[in-house]
Amino acid sequence: MNKKMNILMFSGEYDKALAALILANSAKEMNIEVTMFFAFWGLLLVRDPKKMSEEDKSTYEKIFANMTPKNIEDLPLSKMNLAGLGKKMLLEMMEENHAPSLTDFLNGAIHKGIKMQACKLSCDIMGFNENELIEEVEVVTANEYLKDAINSDIQLFI
Amino acid sequence: MNKKMNILMFSGEYDKALAALILANSAKEMNIEVTMFFAFWGLLLVRDPKKMSEEDKSTYEKIFANMTPKNIEDLPLSKMNLAGLGKKMLLEMMEENHAPSLTDFLNGAIHKGIKMQACKLSCDIMGFNENELIEEVEVVTANEYLKDAINSDIQLFI
Amino acid sequence: MNKKMNILMFSGEYDKALAALILANSAKEMNIEVTMFFAFWGLLLVRDPKKMSEEDKSTYEKIFANMTPKNIEDLPLSKMNLAGLGKKMLLEMMEENHAPSLTDFLNGAIHKGIKMQACKLSCDIMGFNENELIEEVEVVTANEYLKDAINSDIQLFI
Repeated sequence: MNKKMNILMFSGEYDKALAALILANSAKEMNIEVTMFFAFWGLLLVRDPKKMSEEDKSTYEKIFANMTPKNIEDLPLSKMNLAGLGKKMLLEMMEENHAPSLTDFLNGAIHKGIKMQACKLSCDIMGFNENELIEEVEVVTANEYLKDAINSDIQLFI
Repeated sequence: MNKKMNILMFSGEYDKALAALILANSAKEMNIEVTMFFAFWGLLLVRDPKKMSEEDKSTYEKIFANMTPKNIEDLPLSKMNLAGLGKKMLLEMMEENHAPSLTDFLNGAIHKGIKMQACKLSCDIMGFNENELIEEVEVVTANEYLKDAINSDIQLFI
Repeated sequence: MNKKMNILMFSGEYDKALAALILANSAKEMNIEVTMFFAFWGLLLVRDPKKMSEEDKSTYEKIFANMTPKNIEDLPLSKMNLAGLGKKMLLEMMEENHAPSLTDFLNGAIHKGIKMQACKLSCDIMGFNENELIEEVEVVTANEYLKDAINSDIQLFI
C-alpha cells in the first residue's frame, strides 16, 4: 500500500489525544506509515514523568512545568470537563466498554514503531529539554515536519 | 473533476459545525465527493431528537445523553459563548445577513447525498445506539474512515 | 519543488495563530507555495487596527467589533489563558528565547508573499468590511478556498 499519514498534535487535551492516537494506531495496523509531530500543548503527551527535572529551567519554565499535568491520564477534556467531573464520567464510560486508556494507546503507538517527533521551537519556549521526553521522541524543526507532511497522503492538525 | 474531500467532525460546537457544513455543501456543489465522519462530540450533530431513547443505556450513558444538547441549534460556540449571550448575538447577525441556520446546512448536506458516517468506538463509549442517529448516518470503524480519507484530496480535522 | 500548502485559519487564538504562521513562514522559506484562508474567529488576525470603522455596521456588528481584540497581540490562548496570566507567562517565555511575536510572524508572512484570503460569508456575518482588513488580504468565497485547497499537497484546519 505504501501510504503515509502525518498528525500534528497541537492540543494537550485527553479527548483529542485519544482521537489522534486511535487514528495513528489504526492506520499503522493497516500498514499506513505514521508520523506524529507534537507541538505546543501536544508536548504534554510526550514528557516522561520519570525524567522531569528542574535543571536548566528559568523561573517561568519551572512554574510552567509544575502547573501542567505530569501524567497524561490527568489531561483535561477539550469540553464538558466540568472541573474533572465530565472527565471522570468519560473514563467510567470507557471502562464500561473495555476501551483502552490514553496511556495504552500511547504505548501501543510507540511499540508499533510510529514515528514520534517533538517541535524544537515549542520545546525551547516551554523549557522542555530533550532528555525530559519519552526516549522514542526525536526533537526536530518545523522544516522536518513540513518535509514529512508534504509527502504524506493524510495530514491532520489536531 | 472526480475530486474527493473528507471531514472528520470531532467538535460539537455550533461555529465549527457551521464551518464544516458550509465547506461540505460548497464542495458537493462543485462536484467534489464529500464524506463526513462524526466522532466524539461531533456525534451530537447526528442524533435524531425524535429517536433518542434510554433503552440499553448504563446510568452514565443516560446522564451523558441528558446533559448534552438534543437539538443542534442549542450547541454552544467554541469561544465567546458567554453563557449563551455570544451565541445569541451570532445568530442575530446570521439572521441579519439571511444566512441559513446550522439545521439548514445539515439538511442540505443530507439531501445533496453527502456521505455521513459515525465513529463506532465513539458511539459505544458515549452510549449512542445506531437507531438513535439520523437515518442517513452509517456507523463505521476508524478503519473505514482511514480508507476513505487516504483516497481523498482534502482531509480536515474539525 | 512546486509544492503547495493551504491553511484554513478558523481559530482566533494566540497560540494557534502562532502555530499556523510559523508553519506558513517555514513552508514559504522552503519554496512551498502557501495560501492562508481566514474564516470566523480567524478574521480577528487580519483586521487592520488603523482602518476599523463603525460605518455600515448594525448594532450587533458594532458591539461585536468592539468586544473583540483590535490588536492581534491581545488575542487569548486556547487554554491556560487564566484571565491573561498564562498568556503573559507564555510571552515572557517567548522573550527569554528571543522568539519573534505573533505580529512579527504575520508581517513576515505578508512580506514573503504568502497569499492571504478572508472568507466572504464570515466577513458578512461578523460585519467586517473589506476596507477594514489588512491591504494584502483578498475577500473570497468558500469556492475559492476549495479550489485552492484541492490543488494543495497539505491542507490544515487550525
